[in-house]
Amino acid sequence: METHEILEQVKTGEITVEEAERYFRRKPFVDMGYAKLDTHREIRSGFPEVVFCSGKADEHLLHIFEVLFEENKEVFGTRASEAQYELVRERIPEITYDPVSRILKVEKEGKERKGKIAVCTAGTADIAVAEEAAQAAEFFGSSVERIYDVGVSGLHRLLARLETLQSANCVVAVAGMEGALASVIGGLVDKPVIAVPTSVGYGANFKGLSALLTMINSCANGIATVNIDNGYGAGYMAAQINRLGVR
Amino acid sequence: METHEILEQVKTGEITVEEAERYFRRKPFVDMGYAKLDTHREIRSGFPEVVFCSGKADEHLLHIFEVLFEENKEVFGTRASEAQYELVRERIPEITYDPVSRILKVEKEGKERKGKIAVCTAGTADIAVAEEAAQAAEFFGSSVERIYDVGVSGLHRLLARLETLQSANCVVAVAGMEGALASVIGGLVDKPVIAVPTSVGYGANFKGLSALLTMINSCANGIATVNIDNGYGAGYMAAQINRLGVR
Amino acid sequence: METHEILEQVKTGEITVEEAERYFRRKPFVDMGYAKLDTHREIRSGFPEVVFCSGKADEHLLHIFEVLFEENKEVFGTRASEAQYELVRERIPEITYDPVSRILKVEKEGKERKGKIAVCTAGTADIAVAEEAAQAAEFFGSSVERIYDVGVSGLHRLLARLETLQSANCVVAVAGMEGALASVIGGLVDKPVIAVPTSVGYGANFKGLSALLTMINSCANGIATVNIDNGYGAGYMAAQINRLGVR
Amino acid sequence: METHEILEQVKTGEITVEEAERYFRRKPFVDMGYAKLDTHREIRSGFPEVVFCSGKADEHLLHIFEVLFEENKEVFGTRASEAQYELVRERIPEITYDPVSRILKVEKEGKERKGKIAVCTAGTADIAVAEEAAQAAEFFGSSVERIYDVGVSGLHRLLARLETLQSANCVVAVAGMEGALASVIGGLVDKPVIAVPTSVGYGANFKGLSALLTMINSCANGIATVNIDNGYGAGYMAAQINRLGVR
Amino acid sequence: METHEILEQVKTGEITVEEAERYFRRKPFVDMGYAKLDTHREIRSGFPEVVFCSGKADEHLLHIFEVLFEENKEVFGTRASEAQYELVRERIPEITYDPVSRILKVEKEGKERKGKIAVCTAGTADIAVAEEAAQAAEFFGSSVERIYDVGVSGLHRLLARLETLQSANCVVAVAGMEGALASVIGGLVDKPVIAVPTSVGYGANFKGLSALLTMINSCANGIATVNIDNGYGAGYMAAQINRLGVR
Amino acid sequence: METHEILEQVKTGEITVEEAERYFRRKPFVDMGYAKLDTHREIRSGFPEVVFCSGKADEHLLHIFEVLFEENKEVFGTRASEAQYELVRERIPEITYDPVSRILKVEKEGKERKGKIAVCTAGTADIAVAEEAAQAAEFFGSSVERIYDVGVSGLHRLLARLETLQSANCVVAVAGMEGALASVIGGLVDKPVIAVPTSVGYGANFKGLSALLTMINSCANGIATVNIDNGYGAGYMAAQINRLGVR
Amino acid sequence: METHEILEQVKTGEITVEEAERYFRRKPFVDMGYAKLDTHREIRSGFPEVVFCSGKADEHLLHIFEVLFEENKEVFGTRASEAQYELVRERIPEITYDPVSRILKVEKEGKERKGKIAVCTAGTADIAVAEEAAQAAEFFGSSVERIYDVGVSGLHRLLARLETLQSANCVVAVAGMEGALASVIGGLVDKPVIAVPTSVGYGANFKGLSALLTMINSCANGIATVNIDNGYGAGYMAAQINRLGVR
Amino acid sequence: METHEILEQVKTGEITVEEAERYFRRKPFVDMGYAKLDTHREIRSGFPEVVFCSGKADEHLLHIFEVLFEENKEVFGTRASEAQYELVRERIPEITYDPVSRILKVEKEGKERKGKIAVCTAGTADIAVAEEAAQAAEFFGSSVERIYDVGVSGLHRLLARLETLQSANCVVAVAGMEGALASVIGGLVDKPVIAVPTSVGYGANFKGLSALLTMINSCANGIATVNIDNGYGAGYMAAQINRLGVR
Repeated sequence: METHEILEQVKTGEITVEEAERYFRRKPFVDMGYAKLDTHREIRSGFPEVVFCSGKADEHLLHIFEVLFEENKEVFGTRASEAQYELVRERIPEITYDPVSRILKVEKEGKERKGKIAVCTAGTADIAVAEEAAQAAEFFGSSVERIYDVGVSGLHRLLARLETLQSANCVVAVAGMEGALASVIGGLVDKPVIAVPTSVGYGANFKGLSALLTMINSCANGIATVNIDNGYGAGYMAAQINRLGVR
Repeated sequence: METHEILEQVKTGEITVEEAERYFRRKPFVDMGYAKLDTHREIRSGFPEVVFCSGKADEHLLHIFEVLFEENKEVFGTRASEAQYELVRERIPEITYDPVSRILKVEKEGKERKGKIAVCTAGTADIAVAEEAAQAAEFFGSSVERIYDVGVSGLHRLLARLETLQSANCVVAVAGMEGALASVIGGLVDKPVIAVPTSVGYGANFKGLSALLTMINSCANGIATVNIDNGYGAGYMAAQINRLGVR
Repeated sequence: METHEILEQVKTGEITVEEAERYFRRKPFVDMGYAKLDTHREIRSGFPEVVFCSGKADEHLLHIFEVLFEENKEVFGTRASEAQYELVRERIPEITYDPVSRILKVEKEGKERKGKIAVCTAGTADIAVAEEAAQAAEFFGSSVERIYDVGVSGLHRLLARLETLQSANCVVAVAGMEGALASVIGGLVDKPVIAVPTSVGYGANFKGLSALLTMINSCANGIATVNIDNGYGAGYMAAQINRLGVR
Repeated sequence: METHEILEQVKTGEITVEEAERYFRRKPFVDMGYAKLDTHREIRSGFPEVVFCSGKADEHLLHIFEVLFEENKEVFGTRASEAQYELVRERIPEITYDPVSRILKVEKEGKERKGKIAVCTAGTADIAVAEEAAQAAEFFGSSVERIYDVGVSGLHRLLARLETLQSANCVVAVAGMEGALASVIGGLVDKPVIAVPTSVGYGANFKGLSALLTMINSCANGIATVNIDNGYGAGYMAAQINRLGVR
Repeated sequence: METHEILEQVKTGEITVEEAERYFRRKPFVDMGYAKLDTHREIRSGFPEVVFCSGKADEHLLHIFEVLFEENKEVFGTRASEAQYELVRERIPEITYDPVSRILKVEKEGKERKGKIAVCTAGTADIAVAEEAAQAAEFFGSSVERIYDVGVSGLHRLLARLETLQSANCVVAVAGMEGALASVIGGLVDKPVIAVPTSVGYGANFKGLSALLTMINSCANGIATVNIDNGYGAGYMAAQINRLGVR
Repeated sequence: METHEILEQVKTGEITVEEAERYFRRKPFVDMGYAKLDTHREIRSGFPEVVFCSGKADEHLLHIFEVLFEENKEVFGTRASEAQYELVRERIPEITYDPVSRILKVEKEGKERKGKIAVCTAGTADIAVAEEAAQAAEFFGSSVERIYDVGVSGLHRLLARLETLQSANCVVAVAGMEGALASVIGGLVDKPVIAVPTSVGYGANFKGLSALLTMINSCANGIATVNIDNGYGAGYMAAQINRLGVR
Repeated sequence: METHEILEQVKTGEITVEEAERYFRRKPFVDMGYAKLDTHREIRSGFPEVVFCSGKADEHLLHIFEVLFEENKEVFGTRASEAQYELVRERIPEITYDPVSRILKVEKEGKERKGKIAVCTAGTADIAVAEEAAQAAEFFGSSVERIYDVGVSGLHRLLARLETLQSANCVVAVAGMEGALASVIGGLVDKPVIAVPTSVGYGANFKGLSALLTMINSCANGIATVNIDNGYGAGYMAAQINRLGVR
Repeated sequence: METHEILEQVKTGEITVEEAERYFRRKPFVDMGYAKLDTHREIRSGFPEVVFCSGKADEHLLHIFEVLFEENKEVFGTRASEAQYELVRERIPEITYDPVSRILKVEKEGKERKGKIAVCTAGTADIAVAEEAAQAAEFFGSSVERIYDVGVSGLHRLLARLETLQSANCVVAVAGMEGALASVIGGLVDKPVIAVPTSVGYGANFKGLSALLTMINSCANGIATVNIDNGYGAGYMAAQINRLGVR
């Protein structure tokens, strides 16, 4: 319906002033077909929906896993507990669980993985977060190279993997404590670097704040940062970037 | 020289223990050809060097502009003052200055711009930072669409530009105050979003901290964040991502 | 007694200087009838007293519930534990407990609920706080519409409920992580919005600080904020506002 | 267009897969009539648009004032400087400027003001912020009582105005330093209290943070808080609440 | 009027229910004689009113100084500027100004000073704050010993004044940077120590926060802390304590 | 030994240059009789030593209690656990334990308590900290009046105890959440107020930080603040002040 | 290979442009012999590798201990739990565990310890961190003097050990709460002081932040600070400094 | 005088109880010869006194410079302004001023400089702070190598100076923004590294806080940190360490 018609109807008294007022307030949104598109998410974003398991009620979790598995023949959950694994396994026997990354998933066999993402960590304690990034990126169709335990206090370890780093479409740099890894990598590659601060450390790291500030203030070019311990978010964005490089 | 030889020489006394010790400490790095590669930066990263003008001494600034201009026939400076513009113009009459973005540059004519980046702002006060991003990305060869003043308190303004947003290879979302723009955009596109918090606001925005925290905690996927007011950094990374999409 | 008389008595020596000094210091408050009015609270504020259960000693909690229940024939407790429910049930069998919102209450039957408040959440994890707000507002006589899981990363979910939102006298917006929901709603309605940051999230949300800062810095008009996770406080104020709209 | 048709056209090759993909991504928003409603703001929110003057370029400011003044016969600007007043006065001679609140306005004569809002301050230095609240609320049609310099270190001053406080539909409590005024008022009235922390103070007030935290943590019911020094925001919301009480 | 009477009148219809409601809400405060006691401040607190000059409008400042000077034959202002001194001097030629402490005052001659307060500073840059404390305490009738530049990095300087320290009724410890002076003094005396953090320092002192935290966390007994740079507040409380010791 | 003699000995070679150097470095401290005076603490400070029980090893705790009890016939421990009570009771059967304040003590019978200290709390949850203050002050010989649950959101409760407040030599104000109690009391009495922020509250109270900032920024005179939850420290200083008032 | 040759080969087509590009990007690092030197760490730094036990998986921990023990005949682990001790003892019966410092080690007998380091603590609760420093320094070949419980609130305890302090090559000052010990020591010695803030304390110490800020802001010369509770880091650096003094 | 004698005199009444009490309180310090040793500072610490010029009153500054210059024939001032240079030059014509480091000094000719300290910076903007460190260390007798503009985003620049770095007795690492330089250097050398965060940067560097946290959390061994921009403090400690290495 057009604005013009509405105003005519107001003039002739067909509709009240209040009805017309309500119309004008809502006009920018009024004609939408409000279908709940969440199950169409893969169509919109190109990536299937992923489940954040931590804190979900058991019945809720089971239901979500079953629906997504039925629809997509695969399903991917992050921050799952051992107990949630036991729970889901009773309904979906194919489910697997990785206690390091706390990922609970079924992945279709034979999926092609394209392009290349490098996922690096400063220390071994950062691997849990890095695996969340790496496995998410793989689930979204990227090929991933893992370069772990190459922190800046022993540069030769990182430099030994330089060729791999430089051949990736995107690098994910995962580090806690002082978080300097992202800056050093930023100076070595010409592709985007996604920095993931971790809560690894103690004292004045303030649960990851120090690494977050380091990464946000990086003097190197081509670096952007996600939330503390947000491996999944980094893996998702890396897969988006890699997909651009592959096309 | 090989480790083996060194140890032989220690044994025979050709070299002292101290000399050998020094060798082993430096070994991971020892054979490097340490050529200063800074003038080869464009070759390494694919992007020419950019000058951060703020705080540079006059003589220093002039010298850098002249060297880079001579070498590349173009030059790009950020955070320049009006006075620095006057200064440089005496030596490089082609230089132009944009008082909003504070960019001081000469750009080669006829440069082809490829792909598409969308640069959005929440308000008009964020445009200074957004222009730094947009012009940097253009300097690095990207085509840029500007979508300004589309903050979340008036959603219809943003939705009216949806098609443009969704056709970009990368979106830069620039916002101060509560910084919610990045999350809303993240839910509307399937490409990477680079979030730039700005120091626009007052009171509890703590010079951009509130927008930074909002963006880092975004519940949408595919978002990463750069430093407060770091338009240049966002433009650089967006150009890297766009370049992948173009190739 | 008048200031004049006091001074006369000082002059004649009827009272000492010290006695007069004490009088003048206390004068602004001296004639009050200091009855402990706490049981008259409903008369003063229009709303019955509510019990914050967390941390109360068992005997103390039981006593308060019994006194309030006897006086008002209903009683409302927030942040109660399962164990407190078991405890109170032995004395007040009518008591009910909601493990999501942790509310422990008896509510009079057939209470009329007037006006309309909309209570919205960004995610499902924010529902515990939202229910505290919703049930408190209902206990205070308001009618409440729940609009849950309509976070800004999927705008169509929120827009689908626009008409309901716009017909409420007051909106309560409950969100953790980046807390952008309040700003978006503020741009869609012309009634007051009470923003409730929640501690939902991780990393740089700093237990709700990020959502609090987002909401305090909102660029939309008509928004004010309560403490992190303070659903009850939002429900109370929403009921006050709704009561004004109903009268 | 329907989903069904789209898919048929894909099948027959009338449209490409890419075109269809784009459609499905945008579907929730696709049919909107995106009229720019900003000039219809008064219709949507019931309140005319207000200008945040600080930092606006001269030409920009002049243009906005002229357009709004022509359209509404009144105009209201906040955080204006003396120089901006001089500037606007040349085009709109009726304009007035209040150096305390920094408000620059023309207000229609004979506007009826309804209901009652009480605006209180702890000290005299908080009056600048309070006047922004009070004059905004008056501009939006509310009647305002000013109760200034009634800080909690001299309770008798506040208690002397108790009757006025209790007869308002809404109270705005403006305070810097320790910000305790809002809590004390919250215990004295049964209407909503909007707390405005100010940056008045020094040292550990951290430019208003101490007052903000005090107000957010208030132990009294019926209090919500806006940004530091945000008098306008408080006045706006108070006018919304008062309007409900008047209707 | 008595509660009983009110209720009788409700019953007979002499007053409405609403009028009675209003009465009961206000009852705890209703009978107060609300005389404005501010000019009687000296009677209440025992100390004359003091003027915080910074930020006061010229006319306002002049008026306050004239009223207080006329009433008390002395007047004491803190944080005054050189320009304010010039201003006041034209009306009150007896006024004196100390550019270090920024105190603007006329003090009655021949005032007896009793008891003893020691005011100590860590460095010479803390003297401005210390003088505010010392002169305020003197104005309120205390005798003050100044012990300046006795910071903990040169302990012998402090120990050389031990006897003076130990003979005071109260010690004011003024320090910036790391603020350790208060703890060391707390271990040397058996009287209360009032700690005043100053904003002296740079970098991670965060404008006095480091000294504030040090003093609040002191491991010594008998120490309490006032706001950063709040010399006046410390002098006031020291005078209160000293007065107890003198009586 | 004199400086002169040292230099003579250097000249004659009786002592080496190094020995003389060492002497001059240490000279300000060199002649002290370094007797460990800790057992003489009561003589120095006038108050017996108190034991901070939390975290002490069992054997260590037992030993300290036995030594102090034997020497003074009384002993006072703070922050003790139930288990520590069981432990100590086996050796000192007279020991008593208060689970609210967590104080573990034997106090001499018939101790005279002089003067008056008022200890106030905002809520009932603050009583644990207040009792630590009150019982410490009593142990050090002060008489204490408890005025609990008189928070500023119900002013009449506090005003009802005004006479008691005003007759004390010192007031301890204990409050969490927004901590406004100290400012209100500061405006009602003419004696020193020691403010104790508590960690009572949730969300943006940040474990007591909000109350601490409120108290440090108090606009009332005569207030100083101790660490969060430091009831003992406040009781100690209040006893020092009261002792001055009694003498 | 030389740059010249590469360019010749590009010209002749022997290598592609892409291959040459890759070469130039990597040139600064390209010739390194990337041997993993971690097992040669003792040769590089002069100190054997140390194990941070906390959070290590059992199998991983066992393996590291066995490898290092076999290679060096000694091994040193920090932050070990009682359970890790039990675990390692089964494979390395010579292992010893200190529950205070949580150090798990085998140390070669008869190691000569040279030079002198003084390790001081403010209180007894800081000893856990101090022992980590002291034992690490001893493991690295330094002789250590322990000076514990000499906090600044009882200066005579520290002064009694002045001669020992002044004869050390380096002092480690370990303190929580207000952390003033480092400044006082810095004024008493002419050697470097390494300050270690600890998380000992409560309330506004914010888990060690207060002590960290105190130490970083120290007004004494010759002080630098390590992370909160980082005894090991301080011991390592002290051993480096002491080694310089011994040579 | 002995404790025994004092007590005898109390018994016989020769001295009063109060006199004896005073004695016992002061006993640990009572016999000290309190000579003001400040002019003997060089003897105590081995380094001459240095003047912090910023904020000093003109007369005060001149006096200090003249006294120190007369006594030592050299003098060293930090954070001096151009105006202070003009001022001092009139009295001490030999004085020199360096506008970069803001050092104002006369240095004796022909002073021998021993050992080696390396001073490194990440960027050119950090040189002001680095020069303060370097020139202070030189003034205290150390030889200094400057290694500037070797930030971690271009590792080859740092590696090119590896041999110089590794031959120093101590390294000072000066960096703003993300401050990663210290960690990288810590992994390359076996000598102590003193890290100096600078306030260089913008946005979330929070005036140096980000670099400070990075350095405090460094994962490399042998690093300790001084205050933001505290070049002098780092130079002082480096000279102390270097002196140990030289002896």
